[in-house]
Amino acid sequence: MINEQRFIKNFNEISKFGALKGQNYLQNSKPTGGLTRLAFSNEDKNAREFFINLVKSYDLDIRVDSVGNIYARFSDVLEPDLPAISVGSHIDSVPNGGFYDGTLGVMAGLEAIVSIKEILKTNNEKLKRPLELIVFVAEESSRFKMATIGSKIISGKLSVSRLKELVDDSGISVFDAMKNFGLNPENLEKSILKDKTYKSYIELHIEQGRVLEEMGISVGVVTGIAAPIRFELTINARADHSGATPMNMRCDALVAASHIILAARNFASEFKTAVATVGYTKVIPGALNVVPGKVVMGVDMRDIDEKNLNTLNQNLRNYINDLSNEFGFSYEIKELAADTPVKLDDSLINLLYKNALDLDIKAHKMPSGAGHDAMHMSGIADKVGMIFIPCKNGISHNIDEDIDFKDAIKATNLLTKTMMGLANS
Amino acid sequence: MINEQRFIKNFNEISKFGALKGQNYLQNSKPTGGLTRLAFSNEDKNAREFFINLVKSYDLDIRVDSVGNIYARFSDVLEPDLPAISVGSHIDSVPNGGFYDGTLGVMAGLEAIVSIKEILKTNNEKLKRPLELIVFVAEESSRFKMATIGSKIISGKLSVSRLKELVDDSGISVFDAMKNFGLNPENLEKSILKDKTYKSYIELHIEQGRVLEEMGISVGVVTGIAAPIRFELTINARADHSGATPMNMRCDALVAASHIILAARNFASEFKTAVATVGYTKVIPGALNVVPGKVVMGVDMRDIDEKNLNTLNQNLRNYINDLSNEFGFSYEIKELAADTPVKLDDSLINLLYKNALDLDIKAHKMPSGAGHDAMHMSGIADKVGMIFIPCKNGISHNIDEDIDFKDAIKATNLLTKTMMGLANS
Repeated sequence: MINEQRFIKNFNEISKFGALKGQNYLQNSKPTGGLTRLAFSNEDKNAREFFINLVKSYDLDIRVDSVGNIYARFSDVLEPDLPAISVGSHIDSVPNGGFYDGTLGVMAGLEAIVSIKEILKTNNEKLKRPLELIVFVAEESSRFKMATIGSKIISGKLSVSRLKELVDDSGISVFDAMKNFGLNPENLEKSILKDKTYKSYIELHIEQGRVLEEMGISVGVVTGIAAPIRFELTINARADHSGATPMNMRCDALVAASHIILAARNFASEFKTAVATVGYTKVIPGALNVVPGKVVMGVDMRDIDEKNLNTLNQNLRNYINDLSNEFGFSYEIKELAADTPVKLDDSLINLLYKNALDLDIKAHKMPSGAGHDAMHMSGIADKVGMIFIPCKNGISHNIDEDIDFKDAIKATNLLTKTMMGLANS
Repeated sequence: MINEQRFIKNFNEISKFGALKGQNYLQNSKPTGGLTRLAFSNEDKNAREFFINLVKSYDLDIRVDSVGNIYARFSDVLEPDLPAISVGSHIDSVPNGGFYDGTLGVMAGLEAIVSIKEILKTNNEKLKRPLELIVFVAEESSRFKMATIGSKIISGKLSVSRLKELVDDSGISVFDAMKNFGLNPENLEKSILKDKTYKSYIELHIEQGRVLEEMGISVGVVTGIAAPIRFELTINARADHSGATPMNMRCDALVAASHIILAARNFASEFKTAVATVGYTKVIPGALNVVPGKVVMGVDMRDIDEKNLNTLNQNLRNYINDLSNEFGFSYEIKELAADTPVKLDDSLINLLYKNALDLDIKAHKMPSGAGHDAMHMSGIADKVGMIFIPCKNGISHNIDEDIDFKDAIKATNLLTKTMMGLANS
């Protein structure tokens, strides 16, 4: 259905912007060595310019909104004013990231639209609804400690003043970074999209986990996007000499932290799709001969089921409180995030799954543990769906991020068939 | 028995060398604000000069060995060639340390000898054996990452080449620091003392724990000095995306570390005097959204009972190995220390305990979890003993280190009575 050679060629070309190996980033016709393409960097600018020119070469309409989201539209259709069938992702990356996170979804969306355009021409047909590809600006949280900035803006979740508050490590705000990029963030309001602007939105993305790879399945149909509840816990216990303090006289912050780490794991395991992770512990003073007096630790809990996520959160907090009474430490909890999981559209899930079967592609319905721009598209689009493909060893946000391109081709065929069908509904 | 005013005056005077508050270190006639008196620093040099002049003012013989240990001797006795009754400690400190760790024992030893000298004069009596006060050089491990350097040298445990290998953070070796201090470390062999050089050695020290304070007891009679077995454990598990990796597909290094931290606590609690501490954990990569792939942690185990210490060590290593098989991580153990506990002399323990009762001082027999120069005196002295006094909240190696001087006076009276008795035996 799609033009595989073109898809691979275009993907390889956009991969050069920010590639860490420079001119030699292609090996065996595949990008290697990872890339750094931070939002609003020169690499990002060059990749966007390349992309815009590529879109123009396919005779699609293009516009960039006031904050930098790029919209490429195919509107030579029967009813150009009907809500469009949209697809999208992002092309910015984390530092020393992989080539596929985000960019694969953008290039798959472009390939789907260009392929549909060709099929229509060959068959001398017209679609009912327009098609639109969105490249969201600043999806990765690396620079400004906030993810999905572009899709948050178009869904009305960020204000101009918030853009001025969010700064990177060198003190540059999102607002200033946008200005320096030639954008007009003061006109942010103009970028907000109304509810039901789109009939549907589909995002194709690498899984960033190992579920599909371990099952040997090429395509995941995402049922919901987990939201994180995150907090930083500080345990204030008592530092003591490690030799001179009998075990029964200790109030060891790291022993308390260990109980909490295991409790988080156990509470999450009670639910089918919940996860809980303690990703870091800072031990103070952190010396071999001192019983730890203080531990600061980061807790990340996620589920696609809002009720279970809240129960998990409450269970863990109750446990921490009970433990503090039992052990005699005090603690503080700093809230970092409390988002709501997004349930994806059942009819679109079923359509994607059915279309995969029709195309003879093995598919698996699964939750997304990672966040994506798609989260913010429910409302703006009547139906939101996601397609996952496996990535090697689940590695992402890393120069070793890799895929089998055959999976990307299968998934892009599924995307193309599904968008075409929706565009005629 | 002792001259309390003189004891306090001398203690306060030596406290000025390295005092962090400078000239204003005395408040309400008590040193405050902590001190920094690193081995071989100017502060150390000035304190040693002050001490040597003080010793001379009391008409005691003084010598400094080739590596910097100071010996003050009272030999106007009936049998000056008999093995002496010795006492000692150190006057170097950790950075931002307290006034009492080490220095209190030295000044108590001096006060005991001077008091005995006065009592003898008043009564027109002579002791049978000489008395000797030892100020050990470089007891604290802060600078060269090795503790009790002076007492290790006199007990033949360090060579000249080892002194050249041990360097501080700026690359200066112990050997060079000694040379810069005007010492002759190349003559290290001359500083080694023969077995039974002394009849006895007693060290008075702050407890550096909270046992005595919580019991409301002024004096601890130490039964043995725990030795540490220490290792650094590296757990190599698997880093994964914290959202995209289901609980049952994880190999989380921090979860494994938590099991081990709790196991260490439980295994140590099985023995009466054993302790086990994990003082630090380094979590890699240490990000909120990544399942920890690697943890490096420091384990410190101590006991005065060698058999139990070895059992504890073996139990924990077996546990780590079993867990690695169960969880599927690999690990490395880097040995950091494997010392042997020192059992103190039963007859001296009983003598100190009995003398305390005679002086109407509440005493408690207890292990020392911390290491001291006394460890290396068994052999060199026929009998080795230690006296502890409480320190506030068990705090040591900290500017908040504090004592009730009444406890120090009681303990110094006990030291004086005991040394006098031993010197006539």
